Amino acid sequence: MANELRKDYILDRWVVVASHRRRRPTDFMGSWREEKKAAVCPFCPGNEHLTPPASLIYFMEDCELKKDYDRNGDRRKNWIVRCIPNLYPAFSPQVSKATSNLQTNSILVSKEALGHHEVLIESPNHDEHPSVARIAQLTHVINALKDRVLFFMSREYVKYVSIFRNHGANAGASLSHAHSQIIATPILPKIIEEENIESKKYYAKNKHCVFCRIIEMETKSERFIWGNNGFIVFAPWASINPFEFWIFPKRHQSSILELTEDETRDLAEALRVSLGGLRVLLGDPPYNLGFHMIPEKHYHWHIEVYPKLAIWAGFEKSTGMYINTVPPEEAARDLSVVFEMEKKALSRTV
Amino acid sequence: MANELRKDYILDRWVVVASHRRRRPTDFMGSWREEKKAAVCPFCPGNEHLTPPASLIYFMEDCELKKDYDRNGDRRKNWIVRCIPNLYPAFSPQVSKATSNLQTNSILVSKEALGHHEVLIESPNHDEHPSVARIAQLTHVINALKDRVLFFMSREYVKYVSIFRNHGANAGASLSHAHSQIIATPILPKIIEEENIESKKYYAKNKHCVFCRIIEMETKSERFIWGNNGFIVFAPWASINPFEFWIFPKRHQSSILELTEDETRDLAEALRVSLGGLRVLLGDPPYNLGFHMIPEKHYHWHIEVYPKLAIWAGFEKSTGMYINTVPPEEAARDLSVVFEMEKKALSRTV
Repeated sequence: MANELRKDYILDRWVVVASHRRRRPTDFMGSWREEKKAAVCPFCPGNEHLTPPASLIYFMEDCELKKDYDRNGDRRKNWIVRCIPNLYPAFSPQVSKATSNLQTNSILVSKEALGHHEVLIESPNHDEHPSVARIAQLTHVINALKDRVLFFMSREYVKYVSIFRNHGANAGASLSHAHSQIIATPILPKIIEEENIESKKYYAKNKHCVFCRIIEMETKSERFIWGNNGFIVFAPWASINPFEFWIFPKRHQSSILELTEDETRDLAEALRVSLGGLRVLLGDPPYNLGFHMIPEKHYHWHIEVYPKLAIWAGFEKSTGMYINTVPPEEAARDLSVVFEMEKKALSRTV
Repeated sequence: MANELRKDYILDRWVVVASHRRRRPTDFMGSWREEKKAAVCPFCPGNEHLTPPASLIYFMEDCELKKDYDRNGDRRKNWIVRCIPNLYPAFSPQVSKATSNLQTNSILVSKEALGHHEVLIESPNHDEHPSVARIAQLTHVINALKDRVLFFMSREYVKYVSIFRNHGANAGASLSHAHSQIIATPILPKIIEEENIESKKYYAKNKHCVFCRIIEMETKSERFIWGNNGFIVFAPWASINPFEFWIFPKRHQSSILELTEDETRDLAEALRVSLGGLRVLLGDPPYNLGFHMIPEKHYHWHIEVYPKLAIWAGFEKSTGMYINTVPPEEAARDLSVVFEMEKKALSRTV
């Protein structure tokens, strides 16, 4: 069969689905570096003094969930989840005189990197990654993300809030303790802006959300992987990574701030089942995941999970075009089996 | 100093120049996997039968450079450079019935991956990478690239020809024998299309080429690295990689097909000096390089070299925004020293 060139649902992003080079899950296993656990993990309980004061902490008091932050340089112990400023922030809220009057012209354009960069420590347990986490713990993680997103979105200079997770050294995780990152930026990033423009256009023309249409289509397609009451998981038509999958809320909503309590639990389950399934299928591979959300009526927030099983090289980097050796239809077939197994195992333990 | 957010000269591509996280060349060294040399290298002389028949061969006969290709399943020996179809092509010229009537709709768009995918074996010597190559050998490589580009560009279904090079296993090179790749695609790829649109707009408005203007500006800037008669090398204003540099012909020209004989030699020297310098500065790091060329009056072809010293992770992949821990001005300072050393060493040997 000849290779197929596929376009993303809405982005001008093309991928060669290279069936000539087709590979099986086992072909990828163990191709990544071993994790090195740091001698002292700054994210583990007892080492709070090695990090900046927390901007948000969940903890239990009198059998009730409470929220606070570190005051006066203190470091609160016995937390459930803990959010801290990144020690080396890419974006920060301080204005500096040095860059506020940058010399630029029509070709050399620059802005201050005004914003925020935080780390959400997902559990006191070093290894409680979403693939093995308790559902109750993941629910706390999602709620803490909501709290921080709400805070950042209220800043006037913030135009976008990106939540992402790097899992494994090969996917860029410099510390192995379970954590996510949150970056608030002063501009709408390129990929998100293109999604915004295209989904807005579609909405204006068709009077409904393009992502709702995609969900409807993929629920019935051979790229469907798994679903529960609130969420659906599928391998996207133009997957740019082997075993890529996307997680969508079924109900139309523009950001995680609109999640109901039931949906929050369903999302926790969807993350646990899908990342647990990925772990089982490929032996805990490195991956990156990113939340896509824009607080606009025409947009439908979702999570894209990119297993890191191939290297984007000279072709991808100089053209913006991709080559994927695993057709999404085959990825979906393999993933749906392990997701179902994970869900069953989970039902027995909960 | 606060971090700075910079926009590419013409692309809508933003990078955080993260001076907080600034790192020195030595911080990067040795962070990549060791090369494994295959027991039998299919690209080494004597193993021609392990590859498809060549589409182009340069060889010497009666003290003259001759060109030919492998006829009737033969494999010619004693070649200087050798171009072969990729065994696992991403794009291929055959039309298949299976995909010629693809079922798609307005959201699921696909095309046949019609095109070409070839490998240019740059030397009979396994390790004659451009960083250590003889200038005469690099001149043959450039001329062979010109021959193949001319051939591909004449095909009606080819809209773009991408030349790229992956150096080192960490940058996606699956074989360590010195080689480049050429991919001819049936669409203008995303990044190239955006460059095309923006440079055309600039040309229409200003009556001169935007890249000529950039060259003029960067020749006098602190991002200038090195130049000879025909070429200039500089670290681009919005470098998305540590120690990234771009190589431009000084004379306005849209593709390598317009290179004069002198310019071809100057390009060979620029490649040798710059990739040799990179090798010295960082200890032969992995890198990707890509040619950007569009046969249009308003376009100015060039080469972008991306050392692979950092991992593009969840943030980069979900936003299309980058973080670079080495300001291009500092990269240029370090690179200009080693380029000059390479040039001097070269003058002594030639």
